[in-house]
Amino acid sequence: MAVAASAETQRNESGVEAVTARLATLFGERFQTGQAIREQHGHTTTYIPNQAPDGVFFAETTLEVQEVVRLSAEHRVPIIPFGVGSSLEGHVNAPSGGISIDTSRMNRVLQVNQDDLDCTVEPGVTREDLNHYLRDTGLFFPIDPGANASLGGMAATRASGTNAVRYGTMRENVLSVTAVMPDGRAVTTARRARKSSAGYDLTRLMVGSEGTLGVITGLTLRLYGIPQAISGGVCPFPSVEAACQAVIMTIQMGIPVARMELVNALGMRSLNAYSQLDYPESPCLFLEFHGTDAGVVEQAEMFGEIAGEFGGGPFDWAREAEKRQKLWKARHDAYWAGLALRPGAKALATDVCVPISRLAECIVETERDIAETGLVAPIVGHVGDGNFHVTVLMDMDDESEIERSEGFVSRLNMRALAMEGTCTGEHGIGQGKMKYMELEHGAGVDYMRAIKQAIDPLNIMNPGKIFAMQAKS
Amino acid sequence: MAVAASAETQRNESGVEAVTARLATLFGERFQTGQAIREQHGHTTTYIPNQAPDGVFFAETTLEVQEVVRLSAEHRVPIIPFGVGSSLEGHVNAPSGGISIDTSRMNRVLQVNQDDLDCTVEPGVTREDLNHYLRDTGLFFPIDPGANASLGGMAATRASGTNAVRYGTMRENVLSVTAVMPDGRAVTTARRARKSSAGYDLTRLMVGSEGTLGVITGLTLRLYGIPQAISGGVCPFPSVEAACQAVIMTIQMGIPVARMELVNALGMRSLNAYSQLDYPESPCLFLEFHGTDAGVVEQAEMFGEIAGEFGGGPFDWAREAEKRQKLWKARHDAYWAGLALRPGAKALATDVCVPISRLAECIVETERDIAETGLVAPIVGHVGDGNFHVTVLMDMDDESEIERSEGFVSRLNMRALAMEGTCTGEHGIGQGKMKYMELEHGAGVDYMRAIKQAIDPLNIMNPGKIFAMQAKS
Repeated sequence: MAVAASAETQRNESGVEAVTARLATLFGERFQTGQAIREQHGHTTTYIPNQAPDGVFFAETTLEVQEVVRLSAEHRVPIIPFGVGSSLEGHVNAPSGGISIDTSRMNRVLQVNQDDLDCTVEPGVTREDLNHYLRDTGLFFPIDPGANASLGGMAATRASGTNAVRYGTMRENVLSVTAVMPDGRAVTTARRARKSSAGYDLTRLMVGSEGTLGVITGLTLRLYGIPQAISGGVCPFPSVEAACQAVIMTIQMGIPVARMELVNALGMRSLNAYSQLDYPESPCLFLEFHGTDAGVVEQAEMFGEIAGEFGGGPFDWAREAEKRQKLWKARHDAYWAGLALRPGAKALATDVCVPISRLAECIVETERDIAETGLVAPIVGHVGDGNFHVTVLMDMDDESEIERSEGFVSRLNMRALAMEGTCTGEHGIGQGKMKYMELEHGAGVDYMRAIKQAIDPLNIMNPGKIFAMQAKS
Repeated sequence: MAVAASAETQRNESGVEAVTARLATLFGERFQTGQAIREQHGHTTTYIPNQAPDGVFFAETTLEVQEVVRLSAEHRVPIIPFGVGSSLEGHVNAPSGGISIDTSRMNRVLQVNQDDLDCTVEPGVTREDLNHYLRDTGLFFPIDPGANASLGGMAATRASGTNAVRYGTMRENVLSVTAVMPDGRAVTTARRARKSSAGYDLTRLMVGSEGTLGVITGLTLRLYGIPQAISGGVCPFPSVEAACQAVIMTIQMGIPVARMELVNALGMRSLNAYSQLDYPESPCLFLEFHGTDAGVVEQAEMFGEIAGEFGGGPFDWAREAEKRQKLWKARHDAYWAGLALRPGAKALATDVCVPISRLAECIVETERDIAETGLVAPIVGHVGDGNFHVTVLMDMDDESEIERSEGFVSRLNMRALAMEGTCTGEHGIGQGKMKYMELEHGAGVDYMRAIKQAIDPLNIMNPGKIFAMQAKS
């Protein structure tokens, strides 16, 4: 591993020089090498150190991406795809240098097929852009990871978020991608049919491959009709266990809940303080139901009964858009509200996901660990999926606190793995979680490496991410 | 291609002799080489010729499968995984001989996690077995391809069926598989968490790989709560176009229909004749709705209104189990009812899938083609997904009819591809559809081959299926 890692951080200076010179000639100011712009294209969101690329190419077409990939392959120079840079695990860092391909100018919605409930977009379109574009069609794209991420980036990291319990993740909602592969060819991974049994599932292979197999330059996505009616509300519970029991029963009863988010007591305190609200400061579930007029009333009432069975309530729900927007704004502000608990601190994000039968136990043990480690770390979670985030607020000048925080995160990830869970429900591996891959997948990682080696034999596509490639003997 | 195909049908006689001798010694009567049993383990369901394996091993454990795979790898002898043999495209044939691994004795349900709505099973458990096992839990496994297929086989071919419009296909409902890989190691592709962003999606790679990357020896599957209420019924339409328009609007309105099946006029005539029914002999939709008591009434009423808008109806629906069972029995008998249209004929199955906006056009053109070609070929379809089956009834003694039928199927597949569809929505490629792979996937097939080569460098796993491997230079 040490050998491989060092091989992957070795810079190919002469190759980089040749490629940057050529790109400057070919593309003029669409190829940038200034320090500020390069650093903006390295990692900037969490405490993982920034590793800037050698240059940034602002791509406008698939053909251009093919040209740049071919040139980089010829000179063995890394390619790092870049959307908006909202990833949390160092995906856009350039540990061995290379060219960042910024897709933000590939931001056109190419086609909306209303009858088929799908659309084809360029990778730089963000989820908010897309929903804005769709506003008059009665359709929407549900995946909402919080940040206004690019759809290319969301596909690359297999993102999800608050709506996944109802609508699935990027895994379920990408019908196909067009990708420039490491040999410079562009491939579209599937037809526009809803399902297919024709050969290996290249779409699902590219979704979650974090730029290590190719550069996504187009996506066909599933869309959904905006529901006729929406209801939602907040429900307090006496304990995290009680809230999790209500979650399990809600899922078991088949209530097609659209969102079901847990905020723990500290998280609720932070929301109240941040937004001058007066929610109960005990563990709460934030819920949303989509359906017909009658359906959303029925769902909310059924949930209220379930909550009551576990000592929760009152379940204060509403159908009015204004009331619902207020509560979801509070939930979406949770990250900033958390930061405000400790001004000046930097966040360390986590996103374990476990079978929901283990969720209460996992969160309770984690809350105890937070207390024992002496950290400030509110919890919010997409609990319908068994996925939760602990946001560890660190004083970056206190090395011992950083060390204790990292120890805590390591224990958290190991706890999730021991409960048949994963170290990442939705953020991806990047650089930050590479050490958990073998623990989570065992021999599976060898087959992933074999696939990477077969498709990208020169290891030019986002090297140093997900897993280390073995050095050649 | 010609070279590769012949390389893949070349038999390794000395290897086969060594392996069969060793297996007979090791496993006694659990390894069989009688002609009848070998032929039963080749293809038997459609007009594709039977190619029997050299021996059949009745596996009982993953460890045994590992042992047999290692032995076969050592001697370069093909392995052909076998469930119940209900596949339709020659998947279980042994074009270059080899060992059939029959998983029918690996038929235990290992674990049901009621709180997590999942279960872990051995690959030989059939879907009916599983639902029988689950009958007291309030849970069910929805995927229903018609045949009582093995779950291992259903995963291998990415099967689906009547419920996919609501519950998805095997792609969405397999949480992980355990597979014996070509090097003899057993890998479990994912944890039991509902979602994960940890590395390449090996689960989705194995689902639909048709035994060419490994032998599935275990699966963890999603389960669903049996709905509180079910309603369903049959609705006639003046034309296939009108029925398809109603389908599109139903999907667009977000009605969470659980089943939506089209039977064309000839299909309805065959059902009536076969089961002494008196349904209208015009194109009909068979529908089922799952939900709460109020929800299934609301859904049925909403559909009835939509049908009316397109000249369909009356929509005769019911909540009583007895009435619903009668109609679904009729729908499930469609295959036999079709055969009864032409006693003595053999069936040629097809399963194109197109975007639903193109479905009416595709079916209408196909009906015209059937008439012009002079074939007897009723149509049934999982139209909510854009997937339909033409069952061509052929007189196997009439070579010109077989030729005309094959010409028709080729045109049908090309028509679907031209409409952004796939040649196979749910049956898989096997041997029967290999010629469409390059047309459907273009350069994508090269990356599939690269993956196959990386994971199965000796090409021992179900060779001669999905795509031909290039002969080595």
